[in-house]
Parts: sequence; C-alpha cells; structure tokens
Amino acid sequence: MDLYAITVPQFCKMLHNVELWLDAGITYAKAKKFEPDQLVGMRLSPDMYALDRQVQSACDAAKFACASLTGKTPPAHPDTEKTIEELRTRVRSVIAHLETYKREDFVGGAERKVSPKWLGGKWFTGQDYLIQVAIPNFYFHVTTAYDILRHSGVDTLGKSMFMGQLPIREG
Amino acid sequence: MDLYAITVPQFCKMLHNVELWLDAGITYAKAKKFEPDQLVGMRLSPDMYALDRQVQSACDAAKFACASLTGKTPPAHPDTEKTIEELRTRVRSVIAHLETYKREDFVGGAERKVSPKWLGGKWFTGQDYLIQVAIPNFYFHVTTAYDILRHSGVDTLGKSMFMGQLPIREG
Repeated sequence: MDLYAITVPQFCKMLHNVELWLDAGITYAKAKKFEPDQLVGMRLSPDMYALDRQVQSACDAAKFACASLTGKTPPAHPDTEKTIEELRTRVRSVIAHLETYKREDFVGGAERKVSPKWLGGKWFTGQDYLIQVAIPNFYFHVTTAYDILRHSGVDTLGKSMFMGQLPIREG
Repeated sequence: MDLYAITVPQFCKMLHNVELWLDAGITYAKAKKFEPDQLVGMRLSPDMYALDRQVQSACDAAKFACASLTGKTPPAHPDTEKTIEELRTRVRSVIAHLETYKREDFVGGAERKVSPKWLGGKWFTGQDYLIQVAIPNFYFHVTTAYDILRHSGVDTLGKSMFMGQLPIREG
C-alpha cells in the first residue's frame, strides 16, 4: 500500500468526477430553463457552505494532502470562483498540479510531521493526517457537492457517477 | 502505511461519530417537539436513500471492506432498522465486530482478489477495492447521513463533529 496510490490518482479521479457532475448541472439547468450558475449558490442548510465553497474545499483538501505528505509547496488558489465555468477551471488546475507528483515524492510521508496553520504549531504524523484528516475532509466536501446537486434536482446524477470509472478485472 | 490503520480504527471512529450525530438528532427533535424517529425517513431527494439506509450502507461498507481484505465472513445484518434506537444498535454491533480484527488479519490484503456479488465473478485487487470502492462508498454514506441531519435542521452538528477526535501532537 503506497501513499501515492491512496492520494494522487484517486483525488484526480474524484475531482474529474466533480467536473462531470457540474456538467450534468449545466445540462439540467438548460433543460429546466434556469441560469446554470444559480447552482453555485445552492446549499443544504443556511449555515453550510454552498456548492462553490464545497468544490473549492475539495480541491484544497486534495492539494494540501499531497503537499503536506511530500513537503512541496502547492500553488495558491484565492477562492474567487463565482461561476460553474470558473469552478471547472479550478478543478482542472488542481488536477494538473496533482499530476506533477511522482510516487517517489511520497517516500517517508507517513512519518512526516504535518502542521496545518489551524493547529497553531501542533502537528499530526503524516499517516494520521492522511487517514483521519485529509481523506475524510476530501470526501466530506466532494460528497456534499454531489448531495447539493442531487438535492437541487440534477436528475442525471447517480451513484455510479459519484464513484467514477472502476478498475474491474476479469479472469 | 498499513491496511489495518486505514480501515478498522478509522471506520470505528466515524461510525461512533454517526452515533453522536443521531444523539444530536434526538436532542433537536425533543427541543422542537417532534418525534425523533421522523428523522429516519428524511432524505435529500426522492430518489436518494433516507437516513436509515444511509446509516445501514455506511455500516455495510465498513464491514465488507474489512471482510474482503482479510477473507473473513462478516455477521449478517438484514436492514430492518426503523428507529434511531435500532440504527444505534446496528452501528454499535458493527463497531463491536470491527474491533475483533487484528492488524495481522490484513497481511496480504492489498494483493487479495476481491469479488463483490455485484461484479458477477469479476474482481478488484484488494488495494484498488479499498481505495476506489470501499473508502469512497463509506464516506459517501457517512457524509450523506450527516448532510441529511444538517438539512433537517439539527443545529448542534458541525464539522468538528463530522471529523471526531483527532490525534494532535505537541512538541
């Protein structure tokens, strides 16, 4: 089990799935004759993030997970997206960044000290951070983005579009 | 990075968190003077699972992940829960089962052939199954259970209750 396999390809696949869900949102909006960017402000509760911030947070969770486990500095993204098209650009930018990582970048990552700003100097081991912080946080935001679109009526989304392509083998 | 650490303790923690969210639902229902078990049937969209099935599916995802990676046979759970109390019992039963696993049960799990019934004889490697099927599926159902409760107004839930206790270190 290697850290690269748990992070880069799976984060990229899920972020690519998010892009497909946004496409489905546009198609639904056009069929129902409403402005697709209305979806960007939809949320499940007044004190939860709207779709824009869920997508931004999913992007950040993936980006910071890989940076923290490898000691690399990720590119900045100032969270200014206001449209589906801008969210799509953000997702693609993060996927392109993640694709620059190599398996060897993650060597020793499980033992690395990971000290996110919000911990004020305290830290996690790389392994604890990945399993207990980065992965749950990433899936929280990805799933809530999906749930917002489903709750908004986007009727072409289904569980198989959440999961994306699966490496099924035969024989 | 070992398969045990990625699965058993984290699944147990998240399922324990689910129990705390159900408790928060009961408290909210009592404050608002509605029957707490009304929450069990809440859903985000008419063609998505309600809270009961989300919790059952999260339990199954965790249970089948550990069984598939170790070759063990998990206990059956017939999905008959209709109340929060019954869902709580289900969650506790699955946590108690997961706690019977030992680290050494997972040796060789990444290379194991995993062939869920729905694949009709086809299969995943253990590693692919865990990363691309079991973990995304587990977090999908856990997050959607949380989102249903938040959408239902349960106002004491927040992100830190989603994440649960974190292994923060000092010094």
